[in-house]
Amino acid sequence: MDYQAFFRQRLTDLKDEGNYRVFIDLQRKRGGFPAAVRTQGSDRDDVTIWCSNDYLGMGQHPKVIAAMHGALDRCGAGAGGTRNISGTTHDHILLEQELADLHQKESALVFTSGYVSNWAALGTLASRIPGCIVFSDSLNHASMIEGIRHSRADKVIWKHNDLQDLEAKLAAADPDRPKLIAFESVYSMDGDIAPIAGICDLADRFGAMTYLDEVHAVGLYGPRGGGIAEREGLMDRLTVIEGTLGKAFGVVGGYIAASEELCDFVRSFASGFIFTTALPPAVAAGAAASIRHLKDNTGERIAHQEIVADVRRRLDDLGIPHVPNPSHIIPVIVGDPVKCKFLSDTLLDEFGIYIQPINYPTVPKGTERLRITPSPVHTPEDVDRLVAALQCLWGRCQLARVPMAAQ
Amino acid sequence: MDYQAFFRQRLTDLKDEGNYRVFIDLQRKRGGFPAAVRTQGSDRDDVTIWCSNDYLGMGQHPKVIAAMHGALDRCGAGAGGTRNISGTTHDHILLEQELADLHQKESALVFTSGYVSNWAALGTLASRIPGCIVFSDSLNHASMIEGIRHSRADKVIWKHNDLQDLEAKLAAADPDRPKLIAFESVYSMDGDIAPIAGICDLADRFGAMTYLDEVHAVGLYGPRGGGIAEREGLMDRLTVIEGTLGKAFGVVGGYIAASEELCDFVRSFASGFIFTTALPPAVAAGAAASIRHLKDNTGERIAHQEIVADVRRRLDDLGIPHVPNPSHIIPVIVGDPVKCKFLSDTLLDEFGIYIQPINYPTVPKGTERLRITPSPVHTPEDVDRLVAALQCLWGRCQLARVPMAAQ
Ligand SMILES: Cc1ncc(COP(=O)(O)O)c(C=O)c1O
Ligand SMILES: Cc1ncc(COP(=O)(O)O)c(C=O)c1O
Repeated sequence: MDYQAFFRQRLTDLKDEGNYRVFIDLQRKRGGFPAAVRTQGSDRDDVTIWCSNDYLGMGQHPKVIAAMHGALDRCGAGAGGTRNISGTTHDHILLEQELADLHQKESALVFTSGYVSNWAALGTLASRIPGCIVFSDSLNHASMIEGIRHSRADKVIWKHNDLQDLEAKLAAADPDRPKLIAFESVYSMDGDIAPIAGICDLADRFGAMTYLDEVHAVGLYGPRGGGIAEREGLMDRLTVIEGTLGKAFGVVGGYIAASEELCDFVRSFASGFIFTTALPPAVAAGAAASIRHLKDNTGERIAHQEIVADVRRRLDDLGIPHVPNPSHIIPVIVGDPVKCKFLSDTLLDEFGIYIQPINYPTVPKGTERLRITPSPVHTPEDVDRLVAALQCLWGRCQLARVPMAAQ
Repeated sequence: MDYQAFFRQRLTDLKDEGNYRVFIDLQRKRGGFPAAVRTQGSDRDDVTIWCSNDYLGMGQHPKVIAAMHGALDRCGAGAGGTRNISGTTHDHILLEQELADLHQKESALVFTSGYVSNWAALGTLASRIPGCIVFSDSLNHASMIEGIRHSRADKVIWKHNDLQDLEAKLAAADPDRPKLIAFESVYSMDGDIAPIAGICDLADRFGAMTYLDEVHAVGLYGPRGGGIAEREGLMDRLTVIEGTLGKAFGVVGGYIAASEELCDFVRSFASGFIFTTALPPAVAAGAAASIRHLKDNTGERIAHQEIVADVRRRLDDLGIPHVPNPSHIIPVIVGDPVKCKFLSDTLLDEFGIYIQPINYPTVPKGTERLRITPSPVHTPEDVDRLVAALQCLWGRCQLARVPMAAQ
């Protein structure tokens, strides 16, 4: 077989479909984010990032940066080993305590990423609990899907956010088999939110565990940034809360928070936790500083909600259609990968505004979109420039507008 | 089902077998490594680490630390997005160029860890190349096994490092099907080294791709630290070279280096690459600085080989048995998890020497061991103290010695 020709052909297919991805080469400016410099060949341009998941700008918060500098000087660069073999540093222990406290759980366990936490925790629970059936929301993130797939447990997919469908599927399953309901709070591409209380009620009725991915909610919702479950007073009803340190907390890494036994079980059996170098102590220290700050301060969260509402209002005023949802994510559906990339390229090249086009496999084909994520570090002038650019492009490209009456 | 009781029971089983793992809480001293402080309750003790995979002490190298401080100040803490959605920073691009150059490949692709690079790259190649058969060395690392398992491709396991067995198995397979031979250079727990040239010969004969994990060799072998394949002049014969940024390079992260098409293929299709936050720019900058330093300087590598030889000689003089192998890893087989943990605990509590006991599932049951990893930053006094402590323990515990005649 000509392997190279095979790879080339599959890449050509992607290009033909308009789904080939070109990564933008950025340098964020610490203290100036969302400002960044984009490198393209020998060109370097100033751009404003409008699609980051550093939702609150915590990646440049002085406390986070100071904690990382401090840990680098104290402990050096890497952890130097897996968690079991010399890689557990005091900063990991403190971070896990911070996370357990955030979610008011007995224990927490840190992984190298949110992806790995979902993959490893779901993979381990579903494969090691004999006879376990996983009930998975149909729009769950790739990392959850891969973890469940990896477990080879029986999987039942229920309609996205649909309690009736979940109930019917739970009722149809053998009452004696162990069950795990896996879902997210804020779905990252549509910005809708799961009916957590209703899911917990069903879990209680059918004797199921609950596994909630709060990756796009931790730091952002709840009085201390514990996520949607905290906001709704439901944290104690969830078996496992999973989150990331790489989005609102601004650093990198992932975790689960749960009972001491469950965390210890995953710690003891999950291949993806055991057989990998631990996160650097500086990462752990930076993440812990970020979590602590957001526990004690609501300023970023309030400013975040305000700017999101402001951007939505301004888009509404222009009739630029965006998906209505109760979260901080503003999806503008374009519905075609080529057009979506064209819009994104033009925003970048002509207006210095960077919004990555979101295409398949991240979203279903035909729902390609610009996904706008305002943050408290965007200025009113940034918003003006964004809105003016979209206004201009929507006119030039004769894109659909929301009929004024429907607004 | 009583989930908590189930978890508790499985943890009790582990404890009964002696396989329950207790993580040591360490604070490495930057500039003083292998010295560290161990925290246990309210106690804090000075210890010397003898089991780190920061093999060369690069985790505290001034160039690495400076690069990380610099990137933190320039760009902030996290990347703020997946590689596709605002998370590709200029530091990632430079790191990938550095890695491609290190292995003299057209391209390289960085992942959040070596684990994820194996899992995602093998998983993607083996699942997406129609009809692919993976020929996997029987002692391959968990991350490779899980990647192959995840792909659901047909897998043929060949006897560890056994060219005859590999040949027989390749010959028995359908000549028309695509094939991938997956193996490591230095096996981390026994320290033996694969017959890379012979494997490449077989790959050529049977039209197979080769995938070599050099996680325990990059930075350590070859004129520029390219690994065993570089030392043996074989880099161009391998389809994929995989490595980590978290061991000899002292930071965290993983990568593959290969043809442009292959890297682009994995970049475009690997779930574990696509759907996760990129490494922080500071991590990328630190790793690149480490790689650059080890390309241009052989001092660390030479000193490393010398201290490994010295420790081996000193153990031989005392008749303390260790597995003979051609690498830098010194395994002292104890063969029982309880005894192994007792030795490790005593070394730590009485002598301030930290060597984590290695037990199942990292090594097969019955081969539990102390795995000693000398580094160029261990001093002659550190070696004296290590040897004296082992001498004392071997006497006290009446452990087997190598008969003097056999030495
Ligand atoms: C819902 C969801 N879960 C998990 C992840 C993975 O988290 P991380 O980026 O920390 O790997 C992501 C995004 O990356 C996500 O959107
Ligand atoms: C052979 C081998 N491959 C891959 C890995 C994973 O690399 P990382 O620690 O960067 O995840 C390890 C150890 O952790 C290993 O020993």
